[in-house]
Amino acid sequence: MKQPMRVAVTGAAGQICYSLLFRIASGEMLGNDQPVILQLLEITPALKVLEAVKMELNDCAFPLLQDIIVTDDPKIAFSQTDIALMVGAKPRGPGMERADLLKDNGKIFSSLGKVINEVANKNIKICVVGNPANTNAYILAKNAPSINQRNITALTRLDHNRALHQLAEKTETTVSAIQKVIIWGNHSTTQVPDITYATVSNDRAKDKVDDSWWKDEFMPCVGKRGAAVIAARGSSSAASAANGIIDHMRDWCLGRAEGDWVSMAVPSDGSYGVQAGLIYSYPVTCQNGDYSIVQNLDISDFVQSKMTESENELKSEAELVKELI
Amino acid sequence: MKQPMRVAVTGAAGQICYSLLFRIASGEMLGNDQPVILQLLEITPALKVLEAVKMELNDCAFPLLQDIIVTDDPKIAFSQTDIALMVGAKPRGPGMERADLLKDNGKIFSSLGKVINEVANKNIKICVVGNPANTNAYILAKNAPSINQRNITALTRLDHNRALHQLAEKTETTVSAIQKVIIWGNHSTTQVPDITYATVSNDRAKDKVDDSWWKDEFMPCVGKRGAAVIAARGSSSAASAANGIIDHMRDWCLGRAEGDWVSMAVPSDGSYGVQAGLIYSYPVTCQNGDYSIVQNLDISDFVQSKMTESENELKSEAELVKELI
Repeated sequence: MKQPMRVAVTGAAGQICYSLLFRIASGEMLGNDQPVILQLLEITPALKVLEAVKMELNDCAFPLLQDIIVTDDPKIAFSQTDIALMVGAKPRGPGMERADLLKDNGKIFSSLGKVINEVANKNIKICVVGNPANTNAYILAKNAPSINQRNITALTRLDHNRALHQLAEKTETTVSAIQKVIIWGNHSTTQVPDITYATVSNDRAKDKVDDSWWKDEFMPCVGKRGAAVIAARGSSSAASAANGIIDHMRDWCLGRAEGDWVSMAVPSDGSYGVQAGLIYSYPVTCQNGDYSIVQNLDISDFVQSKMTESENELKSEAELVKELI
Repeated sequence: MKQPMRVAVTGAAGQICYSLLFRIASGEMLGNDQPVILQLLEITPALKVLEAVKMELNDCAFPLLQDIIVTDDPKIAFSQTDIALMVGAKPRGPGMERADLLKDNGKIFSSLGKVINEVANKNIKICVVGNPANTNAYILAKNAPSINQRNITALTRLDHNRALHQLAEKTETTVSAIQKVIIWGNHSTTQVPDITYATVSNDRAKDKVDDSWWKDEFMPCVGKRGAAVIAARGSSSAASAANGIIDHMRDWCLGRAEGDWVSMAVPSDGSYGVQAGLIYSYPVTCQNGDYSIVQNLDISDFVQSKMTESENELKSEAELVKELI
């Protein structure tokens, strides 16, 4: 039997985690032979609800679930963790400006970054989900200099999966037939859902749809899908967000079949001219527990202008929180 | 690629299904090579929320999910279905007597039974979850005479899993070390969580715990765990119930390793003296898409008296709904 992996999860009593934790414990994220220890963090007032989640996790009798730690102390939650899923964040309240949201969450992520820097496994794999996810990850990274920086990532896999579905529906096929869509940039409405290299049953997607559909329908639909789900459901995406997290971490840890790529927001190494260090979504391949940014794609002027717009948004977000860096 | 299986789910916009559908679509219930079509039934006022669930299912880009049908028409929901998960039921309202609850749900399950009888696959595998689950399954069975009667079952796997955890915690081990616990009888507080044959790391569980712990703590704890979760969580078990459904159907369809058994409420064939036709929870083994009731276990006077009490409750429930049979 393998040694258990320690998985820290923040915001653990919230809705996304209610859809997430049971799938981690069942083996969907790290494989059917990988025992896990869940290290669950919440703010003090939410601990009672989190204890109830723990009861239900126990009531599943998951063979792979070795232990469940429930705590409001980040030093306990991140102790020796191999994986951290940073789901918790302060939501935007009524009348709150985006700048205020950035600063409030920035404080949380700078503080958690310092703790991770101190107590986590140095090769910890981190996925930030709480919004603004890219900039929260950026702040975390700058406050955790001893951690392998390339392992501090943010979630754009939900956007990627949404793009797969929209393209499959439009071309009247199933998602399995689609490969090589890309989400570039920030997990926000400036994200760039790109089908330049996408294939549908190995044919070029761009030969099957009009440019106007891609630019005027697909791109805004994917970018604003979260708002559409809220309008339909009355609350924000939970199970689909949890699924994006599972997919992001599973592919990163266990690898993905060759010939396809997925989207992950990772620290830029300057690829495609993006300012190094910004947490920017790229197409990546995954193998041997690591990811590689797909290189040498020709970028059209149209996509380049959108990519730059999203990069500029990330720069302005970084500027707003510079005192936390 | 295998032909897709049609899975009907009732109460599909509810909390249990929000934890259930995504795990079915990911392959956890029927295997990673089995495509599925979800046929989701709800009452008309809940269709809008169910459409939002469909959006999120699509946003997961599950490779195995071939189609999603959303409907308020049982004839569409059960058309040619291979599997039906009967999660929806009318909850007990304030001031409502148990007899009223039985009759109201009885009407729902007799009506759905007639539709299943008409439009479903004759070998459909059915798991009733909505309470009172055993008697709802009994009514369904009597109204669906053309359906393979032994395939009409009710869920006691959640109780079984709860029992595994309680015994593992008490004996300071993990659930993987525990085998051969039993839930006998009705999914109600008269259920009989039995450790007579249970083993802990291949040793007899009864040698490791006091009889008084089993009878005075373990049995009421397992039987009343649902109420304890409601008290802690503020709402009833959802993710753990969904997990019980996944486990029940996965083991039934795909089999389970020899040497262990699980609990399923199935139509009694008279085993252990239980009145034939009652939906009674037994220890079963699962192989080749079928279950077998474990035979020839010696039953102590204590367990027998509890088993009879639970059987008598099922008889009295059946009596209350006899006009629906």
